[in-house]
Amino acid sequence: MKLLRVGARGAEVPALLDAEGQIRDLSGKVADFAGQGVSLEALAEIRALDTSALPVIAPDTRIGACLASVPNFHCIGLNYAAHAAETGAKRPKEPILFSKASSALSGPNDRVVLPVGSEKSDWEVELGVVIGRRCDRVSEAEALAHVAGYCTVNDLSERAWQMEHGGQWIKGKSAPGFGPCGPWLVTADEVPDPQALALSLDLNGTRVQESDTSDMIFGVAEIISYMSRFMTLLPGDLIATGTPSGVGLGMKPPRFLRPGDTLALRVEGLGEQRQEIVAAE
Amino acid sequence: MKLLRVGARGAEVPALLDAEGQIRDLSGKVADFAGQGVSLEALAEIRALDTSALPVIAPDTRIGACLASVPNFHCIGLNYAAHAAETGAKRPKEPILFSKASSALSGPNDRVVLPVGSEKSDWEVELGVVIGRRCDRVSEAEALAHVAGYCTVNDLSERAWQMEHGGQWIKGKSAPGFGPCGPWLVTADEVPDPQALALSLDLNGTRVQESDTSDMIFGVAEIISYMSRFMTLLPGDLIATGTPSGVGLGMKPPRFLRPGDTLALRVEGLGEQRQEIVAAE
Repeated sequence: MKLLRVGARGAEVPALLDAEGQIRDLSGKVADFAGQGVSLEALAEIRALDTSALPVIAPDTRIGACLASVPNFHCIGLNYAAHAAETGAKRPKEPILFSKASSALSGPNDRVVLPVGSEKSDWEVELGVVIGRRCDRVSEAEALAHVAGYCTVNDLSERAWQMEHGGQWIKGKSAPGFGPCGPWLVTADEVPDPQALALSLDLNGTRVQESDTSDMIFGVAEIISYMSRFMTLLPGDLIATGTPSGVGLGMKPPRFLRPGDTLALRVEGLGEQRQEIVAAE
Repeated sequence: MKLLRVGARGAEVPALLDAEGQIRDLSGKVADFAGQGVSLEALAEIRALDTSALPVIAPDTRIGACLASVPNFHCIGLNYAAHAAETGAKRPKEPILFSKASSALSGPNDRVVLPVGSEKSDWEVELGVVIGRRCDRVSEAEALAHVAGYCTVNDLSERAWQMEHGGQWIKGKSAPGFGPCGPWLVTADEVPDPQALALSLDLNGTRVQESDTSDMIFGVAEIISYMSRFMTLLPGDLIATGTPSGVGLGMKPPRFLRPGDTLALRVEGLGEQRQEIVAAE
């Protein structure tokens, strides 16, 4: 299934993209897509619905983040070797974890406002993984059975705030609108191999990131298994699994986002995002 | 007001400690304490209730985390100069931010299970701040008007996982039960000056941490104002504001938690936590 949330910001309703490409309104039928609302049990209930009778929503309706909120917005750093190299970092021996503030979540096509004081805002196309079942010390072999689904994520990053203000990265990852997520939460049954997805990002129509999730240093199953040694993962947790090379920070000279820029990014099978960059008002 | 949540884990009800020290059941009267449920508006509604007629809950009932869930469990690192020194770190020039997984939240007196593989689990008594109103670029002067209340937090930390597994600290801060929070959420009107609170922690009856929030490098108002430059803070966000010196990592030789240890920690006016340390089963 392709699940999505449509409507004005803060007033989105849960919906489903049906086989004919029509958006069907699920409000009243299911809880919003967040936490237990994307547990494997909740998804099974949606799958059992007859959606052909549900109201159709106009296709030009705004699409919100495919999750209404997240218990945690986890990220994996430097998970593609060429990206680690372009930022001057060593290839990590273990997954690097950090997080974004959950308030960074935003719709896939919302305008991205450069925050006040930002000078080094940058893009990062990533495969997002949504947890569907509680994970405590799960094995790699069992890990993918705990996944609700996958989505496209742009892990927008303010590099000065990430790296020049003391320590930890969260400071540069959390501005409002710095977590576009969606358009769809594509359930795991439609993604037979999360390590075989092309992903790319275009800046103003020019391809700058292009890779494949087979290039990840740590695959999705390994990431989930590894993380679950250190913490309990819960339904609705979102994990952005790292970006390939081609970010602005890695260009010579570095090239950061400016008002008027446009980004188009996609992960194979998970849908495309398009963002216009604007200055803070 | 002193707000708390009581009952078996996962089945807690919101409650209030009244002027006579009785626990009054608020279930049915208010939403659980999380997100908008601790907004300044929601707290005003609780304040307007006549609680004298509400059911009394037995005083020996288990106390849960004073928040049912948190949108973000933010932490400030190295915010007391003597603690920075004992860990070998420099005094930070700007607040260091990191986060704990929200699933680490636990009750103030719950047993703390040393996670499988842990060798360097450590204690950290801290003043917790709960946001009550959305913060975007708030000034220091306005910051405290955005606080719902305060609580005692133990920012339990696995030092090897925090510092010896590559990068960011979240890995060592997020084990299940590593975020005892409460007993009470004490509303801001009862804490006229958050920078004048004694705090301490006893290990097996011996005082090991003892300080005062006046010793913080960055005070609560500065922390909120600073963070709100980088991210939107939302009602229900919890910020643990850093620990004073006296953690196990700083002892010579270091002294980490062992099964059978007990911790007793308190922040002035915010109540005491008591935890027994146990091995993983």
